[in-house]
Amino acid sequence: MGEREIVEALARTLPSNENTVIGAGDDCASVRLPKEGRTLLLKTDAVVEGVHFSSEDPPQLVGRKALARCLSDIAAMGGAPDSALITLGVPADRDHSFLMKLYEGLNALAVKYDVAIVGGETTRCPGGLFISVALTGYAGPEGGIQRAGSLVGDAIFVSGQLGGSLSGQHLEFEPRVNESRWLVEHFMPHAMIDVSDGLGMDLGHLLRAGGVGALVDESFIPVSRAAKIRARDKVSDKSPLLAALTDGEDFELLFTVASSDAVAVKDGWQAEFPDLPLSLIGQIESDSGLRLKGRNGIRSIDGIYGYDHFE
Amino acid sequence: MGEREIVEALARTLPSNENTVIGAGDDCASVRLPKEGRTLLLKTDAVVEGVHFSSEDPPQLVGRKALARCLSDIAAMGGAPDSALITLGVPADRDHSFLMKLYEGLNALAVKYDVAIVGGETTRCPGGLFISVALTGYAGPEGGIQRAGSLVGDAIFVSGQLGGSLSGQHLEFEPRVNESRWLVEHFMPHAMIDVSDGLGMDLGHLLRAGGVGALVDESFIPVSRAAKIRARDKVSDKSPLLAALTDGEDFELLFTVASSDAVAVKDGWQAEFPDLPLSLIGQIESDSGLRLKGRNGIRSIDGIYGYDHFE
Repeated sequence: MGEREIVEALARTLPSNENTVIGAGDDCASVRLPKEGRTLLLKTDAVVEGVHFSSEDPPQLVGRKALARCLSDIAAMGGAPDSALITLGVPADRDHSFLMKLYEGLNALAVKYDVAIVGGETTRCPGGLFISVALTGYAGPEGGIQRAGSLVGDAIFVSGQLGGSLSGQHLEFEPRVNESRWLVEHFMPHAMIDVSDGLGMDLGHLLRAGGVGALVDESFIPVSRAAKIRARDKVSDKSPLLAALTDGEDFELLFTVASSDAVAVKDGWQAEFPDLPLSLIGQIESDSGLRLKGRNGIRSIDGIYGYDHFE
Repeated sequence: MGEREIVEALARTLPSNENTVIGAGDDCASVRLPKEGRTLLLKTDAVVEGVHFSSEDPPQLVGRKALARCLSDIAAMGGAPDSALITLGVPADRDHSFLMKLYEGLNALAVKYDVAIVGGETTRCPGGLFISVALTGYAGPEGGIQRAGSLVGDAIFVSGQLGGSLSGQHLEFEPRVNESRWLVEHFMPHAMIDVSDGLGMDLGHLLRAGGVGALVDESFIPVSRAAKIRARDKVSDKSPLLAALTDGEDFELLFTVASSDAVAVKDGWQAEFPDLPLSLIGQIESDSGLRLKGRNGIRSIDGIYGYDHFE
């Protein structure tokens, strides 16, 4: 099978959606726009072999992850995903069946969230495999929920459980697209971000963007089973709490709402998504910086990017 | 300078436009949409070191080329470019000043065509440098001018001069955005493509997409000075005509219009763009395939992808 045949075979597998006017195969893709009153969200994200995945990872999960990361960012804006373009850089030693498997995982996730794959490109890459996904979505007229916008007194929520994603979660996480859509329709968070670099770092981004600080109760941080097992089995030398704060690649939603909405958010979420915990971990304060309340009092953990700065 | 400082310094240089709601720095970019009756064009294109440019090429021109290629594709649809995201994979040996120069060339071209750079990503890449650009644009309600759509009897036009782009043109070409906008406003071509793989191959794409064929007069093909010099100096072993048909990376517009419009197109173009030649090279025919009329009669050159199949 020649390169052209491979590209044509791949193109036939790509899902479209009701907005697709011209899919893969012309100079550009063309997509029908929503009615007025929406803004266009744009995101691009690359995963690179040896950095974001290893050469032993199943290609289906690698393709899935590449799209899921972008979906998580659209979710972090409170947006609805729409169309994607895929750029693949492929080392000479990967064959046709490898690419088909990669697209199998990618296409299945696209179908699940009604995302059209409207084109892209496959090129040779002398180094390792890289996959760059460009994804569009739509948000409200304000442009989507930003990292800035938190108000003093806001409740801080995080979905799911954090830490230890290297044990498998980083390849199989579910982007919180549906949860984010539900939130925006019912409560409109003041600020939102997805936890990709670890709770400590991403909450820091949200606080700095909003010009505020936070007090987080460490006993309220939802620590994953994987983080506990990794600590117990000494796979990681981080404590479970530190793993939850710094491991990254959790791809959970971290957001703030008015404290008067906190109970309604919590109750509504549990009724709508009974299998996905939602944790109230703390409160926005006017003093900048991130403070952690534990058994031995309050300590500042502002600017932690890894355990060197922490324990 | 740390990685975060470099990214922040780069982010400050990025141009925005009147549609930019949220630029680089949040989970996604957000962009104001045009009034109803437009479609969204999406394009992504990657340039890879050792494939599309060499490590000796000036970084300003490499950055420029990465965006110019995408602009050429938006032009090929008759679209107006709007916003771009840049994904950079950077080998460890490139420093901060290299990235600043690369963005210098990229930003300057963006400003020229009022394209906002609304974000992207810089990641480590173990192999050579790669740059992937994702670009949006807008076209009419029909979705833009496709490769398909040519009618029997249509005149075939190509802009500029072809061949020998490796002598420099491939790094410094001007994407035909303004010319394409003018064409769409005044004549609406039946079919259009940009010449990126060489006239022979790209005209082949246009013909196959339209289910038609063509007769091209070889004496009408605009051969570049660079192609003639490369043949004369034996830099290339292709004849100038063959270079014009197969060299690629010309990034000129190739389009078809009703033969009754041909004179008006030619005259209007020359008045509007006096420095850029427009050549009528042949006519669409019902018989599939590409035929070349020369001194020794007509020969079929259907499916030429290089000189092995030709001379």
